[in-house]
Amino acid sequence: MITSCAFEFEEYLQVVQSFHGYAAPGVIIGGFMVNLGKGHLSEKTPFRAICETTVCLPDAIQLLTRCTIGNNRLKILNFGRFALSLYDQNRGNGFRVFLDPKRIDEWSEIKCWFFKLKPKAEQNMELLMAQIKKAGETLCDIHPVQVRPGLLKKEERGEIVICPCCHEAYPAEERGVCRGCQGESPYTVTVLPERHVEASET
Amino acid sequence: MITSCAFEFEEYLQVVQSFHGYAAPGVIIGGFMVNLGKGHLSEKTPFRAICETTVCLPDAIQLLTRCTIGNNRLKILNFGRFALSLYDQNRGNGFRVFLDPKRIDEWSEIKCWFFKLKPKAEQNMELLMAQIKKAGETLCDIHPVQVRPGLLKKEERGEIVICPCCHEAYPAEERGVCRGCQGESPYTVTVLPERHVEASET
Repeated sequence: MITSCAFEFEEYLQVVQSFHGYAAPGVIIGGFMVNLGKGHLSEKTPFRAICETTVCLPDAIQLLTRCTIGNNRLKILNFGRFALSLYDQNRGNGFRVFLDPKRIDEWSEIKCWFFKLKPKAEQNMELLMAQIKKAGETLCDIHPVQVRPGLLKKEERGEIVICPCCHEAYPAEERGVCRGCQGESPYTVTVLPERHVEASET
Repeated sequence: MITSCAFEFEEYLQVVQSFHGYAAPGVIIGGFMVNLGKGHLSEKTPFRAICETTVCLPDAIQLLTRCTIGNNRLKILNFGRFALSLYDQNRGNGFRVFLDPKRIDEWSEIKCWFFKLKPKAEQNMELLMAQIKKAGETLCDIHPVQVRPGLLKKEERGEIVICPCCHEAYPAEERGVCRGCQGESPYTVTVLPERHVEASET
């Protein structure tokens, strides 16, 4: 029986559906990739993850390891490659797993999906999922890697201060005002809370 | 009873523990923030999320909404501000929730934790969690926002091609070789799979 880590295949589909919103092929294949990588590490190795794409794969890593965006154990370096690395958080040695285009070649519907050879509406989802389930980790290749020392350093978070502009807390190292107030805000209209309006009027 | 969205407080602690690795105060407070934001949107509104920090808060969003890194419904803009926005994915109107330094002021242990006034080992975790549970969403403030039109555009993913250097698939728009092979690799040693060595020898 092919499984994605701790889950049976069908169970993993449900977990993905619940977290990711739907059983996306990339998260399903990602399950096999995480599984393959974890299998190469000693069970006791405290590890972290690098993901080389923002698409789908980060969710497989977050669901099947203790590496998440919010706990800083998962780093996304968006090279647009469907690849991930799991590595010893102290020594930096680990394994990189990637989806191998040559191995995909044998699977018609996976190839169509991955290389976007047909519009989404014309893809056969049932066949695609059947092929993914059958192919499993044979779609991937794995090789050892050594992560650069700079990436292993623990990020020290410095002093927290109040931004004189928005009155929110931000890292002092930014100096002056926070980055949001430096013009990088994603919002066109920001209605400040009444409290702030009052504060500026006094 | 104070709850974090669909979960009771204690249940949410367990969900956070399982996903994030431990019941981090930032993810717990984040639960109240997501709750507050969601409560301001109509239940039928298809929404997306912006998170203004990489620390803890993205995990609360991922656990309590259908917005994840891997499905591209959660964007992280790292301003170092403990704030998030939930907004209509079509119109861009929504609400921004932030942790209000003035409101934290009333809670001794939350203040110590948030502003790092004491080393972690000296913080009183039990008191901190009790204060978070009691304070809940009263720690936050909320205001309407309008997200810039550029952020609402659907990102079209273009053609996928094979990198002549690593033989992996990457977005054609990068041109030449993939970004990993352009010198941005996080690895010092990359042992290529045998298959590639063979390929280069032929």
